[in-house]
Amino acid sequence: MDSKPMLDGLFDHRITYPDLDIQARLARLVGLDEQKSRLAKILGLLVNPTGLEAWAKAHHPGAGALLDTVLRRPPLVVLAGDVGSGKTELAETIGDAVARQEKIDVTLLPLSLSTRGQGRVGEMTQLLSAAFDHAVAEAQKLKSSHGKSRGAVILLVDEADALAQSRESAQMHHEDRAGVNAFIRGIDRLANAKLPAAVIMCTNRLSALDPAVRRRAADVLTFARPDDAQRRHILEHRLESLGLSKKHLEGLVAATGRQDGHEVGFTFSDLTQRLIPTIVLDAYPDRAVDGARAILIAQEMTPTPAFRDEG
Amino acid sequence: MDSKPMLDGLFDHRITYPDLDIQARLARLVGLDEQKSRLAKILGLLVNPTGLEAWAKAHHPGAGALLDTVLRRPPLVVLAGDVGSGKTELAETIGDAVARQEKIDVTLLPLSLSTRGQGRVGEMTQLLSAAFDHAVAEAQKLKSSHGKSRGAVILLVDEADALAQSRESAQMHHEDRAGVNAFIRGIDRLANAKLPAAVIMCTNRLSALDPAVRRRAADVLTFARPDDAQRRHILEHRLESLGLSKKHLEGLVAATGRQDGHEVGFTFSDLTQRLIPTIVLDAYPDRAVDGARAILIAQEMTPTPAFRDEG
Amino acid sequence: MDSKPMLDGLFDHRITYPDLDIQARLARLVGLDEQKSRLAKILGLLVNPTGLEAWAKAHHPGAGALLDTVLRRPPLVVLAGDVGSGKTELAETIGDAVARQEKIDVTLLPLSLSTRGQGRVGEMTQLLSAAFDHAVAEAQKLKSSHGKSRGAVILLVDEADALAQSRESAQMHHEDRAGVNAFIRGIDRLANAKLPAAVIMCTNRLSALDPAVRRRAADVLTFARPDDAQRRHILEHRLESLGLSKKHLEGLVAATGRQDGHEVGFTFSDLTQRLIPTIVLDAYPDRAVDGARAILIAQEMTPTPAFRDEG
Amino acid sequence: MDSKPMLDGLFDHRITYPDLDIQARLARLVGLDEQKSRLAKILGLLVNPTGLEAWAKAHHPGAGALLDTVLRRPPLVVLAGDVGSGKTELAETIGDAVARQEKIDVTLLPLSLSTRGQGRVGEMTQLLSAAFDHAVAEAQKLKSSHGKSRGAVILLVDEADALAQSRESAQMHHEDRAGVNAFIRGIDRLANAKLPAAVIMCTNRLSALDPAVRRRAADVLTFARPDDAQRRHILEHRLESLGLSKKHLEGLVAATGRQDGHEVGFTFSDLTQRLIPTIVLDAYPDRAVDGARAILIAQEMTPTPAFRDEG
Amino acid sequence: MDSKPMLDGLFDHRITYPDLDIQARLARLVGLDEQKSRLAKILGLLVNPTGLEAWAKAHHPGAGALLDTVLRRPPLVVLAGDVGSGKTELAETIGDAVARQEKIDVTLLPLSLSTRGQGRVGEMTQLLSAAFDHAVAEAQKLKSSHGKSRGAVILLVDEADALAQSRESAQMHHEDRAGVNAFIRGIDRLANAKLPAAVIMCTNRLSALDPAVRRRAADVLTFARPDDAQRRHILEHRLESLGLSKKHLEGLVAATGRQDGHEVGFTFSDLTQRLIPTIVLDAYPDRAVDGARAILIAQEMTPTPAFRDEG
Amino acid sequence: MDSKPMLDGLFDHRITYPDLDIQARLARLVGLDEQKSRLAKILGLLVNPTGLEAWAKAHHPGAGALLDTVLRRPPLVVLAGDVGSGKTELAETIGDAVARQEKIDVTLLPLSLSTRGQGRVGEMTQLLSAAFDHAVAEAQKLKSSHGKSRGAVILLVDEADALAQSRESAQMHHEDRAGVNAFIRGIDRLANAKLPAAVIMCTNRLSALDPAVRRRAADVLTFARPDDAQRRHILEHRLESLGLSKKHLEGLVAATGRQDGHEVGFTFSDLTQRLIPTIVLDAYPDRAVDGARAILIAQEMTPTPAFRDEG
Repeated sequence: MDSKPMLDGLFDHRITYPDLDIQARLARLVGLDEQKSRLAKILGLLVNPTGLEAWAKAHHPGAGALLDTVLRRPPLVVLAGDVGSGKTELAETIGDAVARQEKIDVTLLPLSLSTRGQGRVGEMTQLLSAAFDHAVAEAQKLKSSHGKSRGAVILLVDEADALAQSRESAQMHHEDRAGVNAFIRGIDRLANAKLPAAVIMCTNRLSALDPAVRRRAADVLTFARPDDAQRRHILEHRLESLGLSKKHLEGLVAATGRQDGHEVGFTFSDLTQRLIPTIVLDAYPDRAVDGARAILIAQEMTPTPAFRDEG
Repeated sequence: MDSKPMLDGLFDHRITYPDLDIQARLARLVGLDEQKSRLAKILGLLVNPTGLEAWAKAHHPGAGALLDTVLRRPPLVVLAGDVGSGKTELAETIGDAVARQEKIDVTLLPLSLSTRGQGRVGEMTQLLSAAFDHAVAEAQKLKSSHGKSRGAVILLVDEADALAQSRESAQMHHEDRAGVNAFIRGIDRLANAKLPAAVIMCTNRLSALDPAVRRRAADVLTFARPDDAQRRHILEHRLESLGLSKKHLEGLVAATGRQDGHEVGFTFSDLTQRLIPTIVLDAYPDRAVDGARAILIAQEMTPTPAFRDEG
Repeated sequence: MDSKPMLDGLFDHRITYPDLDIQARLARLVGLDEQKSRLAKILGLLVNPTGLEAWAKAHHPGAGALLDTVLRRPPLVVLAGDVGSGKTELAETIGDAVARQEKIDVTLLPLSLSTRGQGRVGEMTQLLSAAFDHAVAEAQKLKSSHGKSRGAVILLVDEADALAQSRESAQMHHEDRAGVNAFIRGIDRLANAKLPAAVIMCTNRLSALDPAVRRRAADVLTFARPDDAQRRHILEHRLESLGLSKKHLEGLVAATGRQDGHEVGFTFSDLTQRLIPTIVLDAYPDRAVDGARAILIAQEMTPTPAFRDEG
Repeated sequence: MDSKPMLDGLFDHRITYPDLDIQARLARLVGLDEQKSRLAKILGLLVNPTGLEAWAKAHHPGAGALLDTVLRRPPLVVLAGDVGSGKTELAETIGDAVARQEKIDVTLLPLSLSTRGQGRVGEMTQLLSAAFDHAVAEAQKLKSSHGKSRGAVILLVDEADALAQSRESAQMHHEDRAGVNAFIRGIDRLANAKLPAAVIMCTNRLSALDPAVRRRAADVLTFARPDDAQRRHILEHRLESLGLSKKHLEGLVAATGRQDGHEVGFTFSDLTQRLIPTIVLDAYPDRAVDGARAILIAQEMTPTPAFRDEG
Repeated sequence: MDSKPMLDGLFDHRITYPDLDIQARLARLVGLDEQKSRLAKILGLLVNPTGLEAWAKAHHPGAGALLDTVLRRPPLVVLAGDVGSGKTELAETIGDAVARQEKIDVTLLPLSLSTRGQGRVGEMTQLLSAAFDHAVAEAQKLKSSHGKSRGAVILLVDEADALAQSRESAQMHHEDRAGVNAFIRGIDRLANAKLPAAVIMCTNRLSALDPAVRRRAADVLTFARPDDAQRRHILEHRLESLGLSKKHLEGLVAATGRQDGHEVGFTFSDLTQRLIPTIVLDAYPDRAVDGARAILIAQEMTPTPAFRDEG
Repeated sequence: MDSKPMLDGLFDHRITYPDLDIQARLARLVGLDEQKSRLAKILGLLVNPTGLEAWAKAHHPGAGALLDTVLRRPPLVVLAGDVGSGKTELAETIGDAVARQEKIDVTLLPLSLSTRGQGRVGEMTQLLSAAFDHAVAEAQKLKSSHGKSRGAVILLVDEADALAQSRESAQMHHEDRAGVNAFIRGIDRLANAKLPAAVIMCTNRLSALDPAVRRRAADVLTFARPDDAQRRHILEHRLESLGLSKKHLEGLVAATGRQDGHEVGFTFSDLTQRLIPTIVLDAYPDRAVDGARAILIAQEMTPTPAFRDEG
């Protein structure tokens, strides 16, 4: 099989950081400071391992041996949490923070959905191997013979559940199992070659991840639905230009929370992708947006149900 | 494989709006004003995004940034509800409202059942890709370099359950999963190219839709069985020419409702496709239609059972 | 693949009406007058749609628009009911009534069991398509350019459960699904070409029929096991030549009913295919049939169990 | 594929009747007089249909029309019952009774287990078709142009469950379904050609038989485990030469019955294949058989468990 | 396919009896006298059927006809029981008793695990057929034209569950079913050719055996875990050379029994394969074995769990 | 297929002992003395069977016969226990103890995950056979004609669950079954050739191991999560260079134990792979590690959940 045409579809729109738009998007991700910080550090050290040495010299002169434990972890971070909790947005924007912090270019390669293939035997394995081949090749060009890399590559695996399902489940298909193995081999290749490359997996079914994949994760960062403060921040930011009163804004914050008869509150996406457009379209084309009516719309809208993670 | 013969069967009878018959059919869809309005707006903006700008200028001069959130939503609307609740009828006729409102031609491409293929590996994926290829090609011809399009395309996916089943279900077949992925890619292609094209999915199993598909929906419009007023409107319209008395008409309204010992009332289709023809055939060829007997027929007829949506 | 040899086995013994033997068989189907009448009307209108116009002119001069609703229904009738309740017998004989009523020849094409194929991928689809090809070709020759056809074709699908199983069931095999789709396409082809052809499906598992198939049915006629009067009629007709007394006949009617400790009564087939031959063979070769002993035989015989329709 | 080598294995040891040994085996089948009589009559009429005419003339001169109902039944008889209840023994020996009664040769073709094939797609269908081809060819040679045949063929399908499983079960494999269809076609071929041939099926899972197969059966004869009298007859016959006392014989009859703490009693096979050899081997090589000890052995032996027929 | 290389792996280490080591192993099998005796008799009669005649002449002069029932049973014995209960050990050593008793050579052919094949369609069938071919060929050389054979062959099928699973289970794979059929054919070939050959099956899932296989068994011998006396015998025999006191020996007998908090006691294998080596290795290389410590080791060891036989 | 490229991927980084780094890793494995001792003895005897003879001569002069029972056990040891309990670490380092004890070189061949193949039929079997081929070839070179070997080979099968799943489970795939058989054959080849080679399997699902594999194990060593003393030892060793106070160290020991609200305590891996790196990264790049904050981090971290072993 000629693998060229396949490679064309391996990745969705690749992103290169730093990028001003992305910087703004990352800044808008409120309430995720802990996750931002940890993710940026892990990625930063992959690019510039000498940073840790410098830190140890300054703060723990005798702890050199300890550094290896940190640096030798596989370059895989799992972002886990409910639908619409900001995982993907962070994964797509964190590269900008790393690029600015380390003063290098960082490239995001988002694994395309098509990498899951069309169900032909061996296809997913082949596509995953091709994707890692590509990431390895790019990262190798960026590695410098000593010290800090000239750039870095992030491979993003969104909606990773299907790809790396748990082998605990006896019914797991051979095809899927082969995909998991191809994935593990890819991670190991990046780790062994000590390349400036990392893999970010986003999943809403942490328990469904294959234990062999999960164990390889350097870190598992968890995400929840936005709380009142986070929702207020988002709504304020978006709706201020519509002239909503403080009272109506608070009404929207309440109407999109858990307490309002919903089992779960609105997700980040529910707010930006569904609620705000609906408020706008309701007024369009003849009326201005009305605060009281916006609250009504929010009250009638059902938040995305929580993904059932049976683990 | 030569894809030509395949393309012949990709779509059922395509419809071009405006069309007087369709206008009449849309007008007859009583009780669905909310759904009509929202669907027409969404489709209208896809064709003519400048409309929203005009609205913002008039009502919310400072809210330009907000528009993007609305305009960037994927061109997918899901119509969900019980069998016979009018989803398909609205999907097939709404194009007329859009065409008249935007003063352009709109074309409906109803995805043929045969697009689900014959179970050959990779076939559904291939057929779906071909269908989106076709829709993209048509829409590209209609896009103008700036402002409003010269026309629009609506791709209709009726009975979408089989096509885009939930990946939550572990037993999902690779073939189906590949079909879902092909579908998502198709939606993304339309969105990325900002074409005057939209996809309408009709489903009676909302919970069975793949979350990745559902999340992409700009809106989910829900439908219920007709209430008394809606049934009266339909029956009146159809049966007036038979000379039924007011009393008999009310008897029919009651006999086709939920209260009459049925778990559910009659669907729109039950009224037009089953009840009325049976009343006519009962009288044919020797007698005139008799109101009392028509009520009897309605009482003996069982409404279509509700589709079991286990989600 | 050469499809010729396949066509040979597509249909079982085809029947052409009118036919005196068939007329007699139809006459013997007691207690099914309602089903006979409705089925004959539906089939008659397919052959001679002008009949309805004439009726409307005579009885409802203003109701012309209504006719279309009746005439545009897909040419599919479902006969549903328990094993041995007369569905197949009616389906095989109703053509005679239509032929005599419309004064034309009617041909029955009973889809062979072999059309379900041997499990090769795509085979059922291919065979069903071939069957519809054949029906379409025959019907086209019979269609006249205006008014009444010169003849009609009935495609009979007996034991249709396997063919058109519900897609509600998640485990439905692709092969079967493809068969359902081929079937739906076949129905649509007949409808679109407005041919003098109809499809009769017999099933004892109405709930297992694919909703997309069921919804296309112009009518669903239901059948039950014979009641006392029907059983008496059958037994009288068959056994009178054996000289059974009135008392013994009544004993047989009672012994074959539900009340006699059986969950269900005897089916039509139980009476003609099992009970009567057993009574005869019991006497053969040395004795004459004895009424008391015949009752004993009936009492010891178990009626065919009801088919479990779990829907 | 060359079908010759396949044909070699299609049938197990074929038997030709009359045969003195078989006659003795049939005579030893006590307690099955009803089944013997009905089976012999059905088979006899297939060979010599004129017999029924003669009977009708003698006993029911006016009942000629009734005969057809009897003679037109498909040449299939199902023997149903628990393991070891004598079904197979009767099926293998009844041909002798028919041969003597009709004064012709009868040939038994026992379908080999290998006809179920080795799981290759289409194989079972092919093998079944070949088996019926062979039966048809043999029977055709025996048919005379008028009146009584010069001989007859019986096709025996033992352990028929696997072959003709119920299509009620949704999980039925396509391969099996194809086998059922091939079987039904075979029956229909014999029936249509009015050949002097019949099929006997033995099954211990009557409820698992495909309804389409079961409905075609001219008769279903049921078998139970031997009762006290039957067991006494068998044990007496076999053990008398060992000099067991009347008391010991009765002890054995009791020990092998249901009442002795067993859920079910001994099957015919349990008695002849397991109990008697164990009694003999226990004494061999040094002691004579001892009645008290024989009873002990019977008490310690567990009868074959009843086959679970979940229907 | 060239079947030569396959044949190489068909059998594990073949054994020829008489053999002094085997004689010792058989002698050490305490508590299985009943099973030894019955198995030796059955095998002995297969080799030397004239023995039974001699016995009948001596003890039951009139019972000649009865012998046939015994001699015609299929040459299959099933050894059923829990893991480690001595089934395999008896199967591997009984040949020595037969060889000495009949004064001939006996060869054991243990069917290799590899005969189950690697999952290729048709492979298991092919391998089983090859194994029976080989057994038949060997046995034919040993058969004498009259009277006693010059030798005998025993085909041993250990861990037979996978090979001959019950067909009651609807999910049984075609491949397995074909294997069962090949096995039944093999048994029938040996029986029909009246060869001096027998098949011994060992299974710990009696209920999982295909009924058609089980019914063919001439005898089913059941095995349990060793009781106190049996365990004492084994431990005494093995450990006496280590100088354990009587008290410590009894402590070991108790610690390995059911009463000691275990659901089941130790199996034969647990004693010889696990307990004794662990006691030895615990002392090795520096200390002598100590009785009190040996008991501790036994108390801490978990006996092999009982195999779950769900039948 | 050319098997060369396959062989390249059969094993991960092979290790040769003695090795100073490994010696240090083995020494750091606290609390596993029992497992270390037993494993080293078993492996030592495989290399140098004369050791046991010498022991018997010194301590149990009369027990020579007993030695064979110990020496003839298959060269397979199963290490079973929860994720992160030190199984793999012991398996990877024990070779150093054997090498030093027996004064020879020992080579570890860790079976690569890729040996599970990509799901092609027969592939796992082929890969496993190739792996054993390789191990046999290496070991044969090391075997000396008498007495002690010149070296030894250890084949390590980590995460063995998938490879050797229980055949009790009826749904086991043929492909997997074939893999189990290939594995058993491999073990038997090593045993029969009496090579200086052993197989170590690590599994966290002991109950899922195929009974035929488990029964062949010479020993099953079980592992638990580290207790307080073990955790203290690890944390002390790693964190002393960071200058943590005794109090903070104890706080970490408590926070990582079971008692702290966790169902299970931290695994070895949780401590070294997750806790310590997180403590370091939290301080990096600006602060020194702070003891109180380290305890907080430990308290917020969830230990790896226990693997559900349903057996």
